[in-house]
Amino acid sequence: MPILNVNMIKGRTLEQKREMVKEVTDSIAKTLNCDKEAVRILINEIDKEDISVGGVLRADKEA
Amino acid sequence: MPILNVNMIKGRTLEQKREMVKEVTDSIAKTLNCDKEAVRILINEIDKEDISVGGVLRADKEA
Amino acid sequence: MPILNVNMIKGRTLEQKREMVKEVTDSIAKTLNCDKEAVRILINEIDKEDISVGGVLRADKEA
Amino acid sequence: MPILNVNMIKGRTLEQKREMVKEVTDSIAKTLNCDKEAVRILINEIDKEDISVGGVLRADKEA
Amino acid sequence: MPILNVNMIKGRTLEQKREMVKEVTDSIAKTLNCDKEAVRILINEIDKEDISVGGVLRADKEA
Amino acid sequence: MPILNVNMIKGRTLEQKREMVKEVTDSIAKTLNCDKEAVRILINEIDKEDISVGGVLRADKEA
Repeated sequence: MPILNVNMIKGRTLEQKREMVKEVTDSIAKTLNCDKEAVRILINEIDKEDISVGGVLRADKEA
Repeated sequence: MPILNVNMIKGRTLEQKREMVKEVTDSIAKTLNCDKEAVRILINEIDKEDISVGGVLRADKEA
Repeated sequence: MPILNVNMIKGRTLEQKREMVKEVTDSIAKTLNCDKEAVRILINEIDKEDISVGGVLRADKEA
Repeated sequence: MPILNVNMIKGRTLEQKREMVKEVTDSIAKTLNCDKEAVRILINEIDKEDISVGGVLRADKEA
Repeated sequence: MPILNVNMIKGRTLEQKREMVKEVTDSIAKTLNCDKEAVRILINEIDKEDISVGGVLRADKEA
Repeated sequence: MPILNVNMIKGRTLEQKREMVKEVTDSIAKTLNCDKEAVRILINEIDKEDISVGGVLRADKEA
């Protein structure tokens, strides 16, 4: 059952996503002692203009 | 008040979404005994490269 | 794959939850044309002091 | 630590987002008595065809 | 419509929640130019053993 | 920035959570090429009567 949401800044490659879900699934299955097939991950890529830290958009911080 | 998030793979038609929210709202109102107008649904469509089951992206599974 | 989150006010009975997930799963499977076994629902029960509409906690509105 | 998700209809300007995260962060820091730098906000913009109130898509309600 | 989720560490008083939802709702209505009554906030209080920063649970960091 | 939500069935020990966040954070930092300190994880433990697969509550499936 573990269902994970991964919120991350837009811009990773397909290969990075592929590696990420593989490694995170392994970590979850090992530490929570569950079947790998039971682990679901939903990736949510977020624009820099849709993330704020300390009241400032990431899009502005890097400008 | 019930607020639902429906995470689903991208690709359904507008007509399918229309039918889905209608039927799900009816089911919620009936079984939770609340007013239909109080039911909110947010649909989140997800790319196949952003979903993983068992450590493998859906985009790779169907390749 | 459809994964649903149902946010609702605390206080429904187990029987109501049982009926709700059954009916909502049927509605999803029928309208999105997917297998019932693929539908997952996570229920999130919320205290009246943790919900606000219009800037007022539900716990205060009913006081 | 406060982490906020703001779900809103698509269409606000960058300037509106900028003002929103600034003001909401100030409100959170002041009322929860925490450091502004600790407040994170994730904005989720939603299409009118992905929101339903009372079983009707917003896209249909305004048609 | 704006629907907010506020994830925060457990332990705030009812009065703090009351002030928080009031101020955040005002900030949202003002900056997004929407009706206050349309703003919904769901508070999610989280135990220190259910939050991790940098791979360390908050419960361990303060021990 | 990566912010993860981990939804899992209630019942893991503190030690399991401790190991899980450590390993998942390492996996995220390595594959997404980001600083470990930037990775936040929120754990959401769910009762068996609040999870449904195929329209049946987990609490009923194991009865």
